[in-house]
Amino acid sequence: MNVPLHQRLGEEFRARIANGTWAEGTQVPSEAELCREFGASRGPVRQALAALRAEQLVVGGRGKPPRVRSAVVSQSVETFMSFTDWAQTLGKEPGQRTLEIARRAAAPEIAVQLRCAEGDPVVSLLRLRLLDGEPAMVERSHFVADVGRLLFDFDTDSGSTFRYLLDCGVDLHSARHTIDAVAADATDASLLEIAQGAPLLRERRVTYTAEGRPLEYAEDRYRPDMANFMIHNTVHQRANMARVPSTPER
Amino acid sequence: MNVPLHQRLGEEFRARIANGTWAEGTQVPSEAELCREFGASRGPVRQALAALRAEQLVVGGRGKPPRVRSAVVSQSVETFMSFTDWAQTLGKEPGQRTLEIARRAAAPEIAVQLRCAEGDPVVSLLRLRLLDGEPAMVERSHFVADVGRLLFDFDTDSGSTFRYLLDCGVDLHSARHTIDAVAADATDASLLEIAQGAPLLRERRVTYTAEGRPLEYAEDRYRPDMANFMIHNTVHQRANMARVPSTPER
Repeated sequence: MNVPLHQRLGEEFRARIANGTWAEGTQVPSEAELCREFGASRGPVRQALAALRAEQLVVGGRGKPPRVRSAVVSQSVETFMSFTDWAQTLGKEPGQRTLEIARRAAAPEIAVQLRCAEGDPVVSLLRLRLLDGEPAMVERSHFVADVGRLLFDFDTDSGSTFRYLLDCGVDLHSARHTIDAVAADATDASLLEIAQGAPLLRERRVTYTAEGRPLEYAEDRYRPDMANFMIHNTVHQRANMARVPSTPER
Repeated sequence: MNVPLHQRLGEEFRARIANGTWAEGTQVPSEAELCREFGASRGPVRQALAALRAEQLVVGGRGKPPRVRSAVVSQSVETFMSFTDWAQTLGKEPGQRTLEIARRAAAPEIAVQLRCAEGDPVVSLLRLRLLDGEPAMVERSHFVADVGRLLFDFDTDSGSTFRYLLDCGVDLHSARHTIDAVAADATDASLLEIAQGAPLLRERRVTYTAEGRPLEYAEDRYRPDMANFMIHNTVHQRANMARVPSTPER
């Protein structure tokens, strides 16, 4: 059987959460108990629990005893929207290298997303994001000028722009995410240390104020061996995600 | 401005839904009114409305007057899980061509997902799915034997296996979906009429009974120019999807 033990343990733990053997809100058995029950060493047990923690099926830890969450995965907005918060949830070191921050005239495909005129000034940010020093994602964000100008006072190598802009009082209220796949271009290939044309998981995002004014249009390209998206649903619950027909370059 | 008119109209309509100009539950202005307001012809207006309908921001139609839905996208389980239902929601003709249905010994990566022993019999289905006759997705499903055997009595070229199995009383209760990107292999390339190595949007899915027993493990590979996934979230609402670290071949 060439499936690693930690993965088999992970599946077993997920099943116990799904079928209520490990009830919602109760404490997860200790690593020592799990090692005994499965005749496993601590490494794979810990790795399996870490995967469940990343999926937020298990919460707590870092001092607090780990507890079982509902079998339906969800993620806080901070963790979902902020790479920095997400990495920290995983117990990994987030990193970023700013390649470029520029104010320039909005290209047509940016203007349509930000609902400004073509040629209006926008602030564009190109960053490589890292997990424990490993290249994970290329981020291309475009902000309307009055929000983007705040970034010139921020060290974009220091952490979360999402958190920084919230702290500045910017009304980042809701977002629409579109997920598809795209071939790595020359920039992606060189930054992510992969071959040009390799498949990347792409998330395009428009972030709006409460009034529905777009503030940011971003395109994040992930190495699929570094990050996936996961959703759970049941027949009693509408999926909070929709499969939609493609719109070219939307 | 080389952004097509229907796309610009779509963005404007989405904004009106997001900011409440078009209030939840109210009737969408008629095509004629929208043509007048935007000085547009019927084609782009209709195309923009169709996009909103696909995202389920607009519901009704087919006789019933179209109404505005909440700006948070969601999709019924049937539409989310069944390609056939989804295509019909889009007003497109779903199609399928069965390449293979086989009972065989479970490979290790299938066994771990279905929590059976390696070598236990599973039923595997390989189908090409079409939208209006156009190749859209390659579906590889693997069922535990007692569910899979039902498929030998079903014409898998005739439509939804999800619907058929539900009608047989199979307890397809919940599912875990993992989304990433993958390069087209030789089978994908020939069926989807694309180059080998081209990026595909991949959805892997494990479907469980209410008790958490896995019944199906499926891998769907979409041409990204045919389907995307979309999710909306707000700061007051947890995202129902999580970004997770990759597990190789999970």
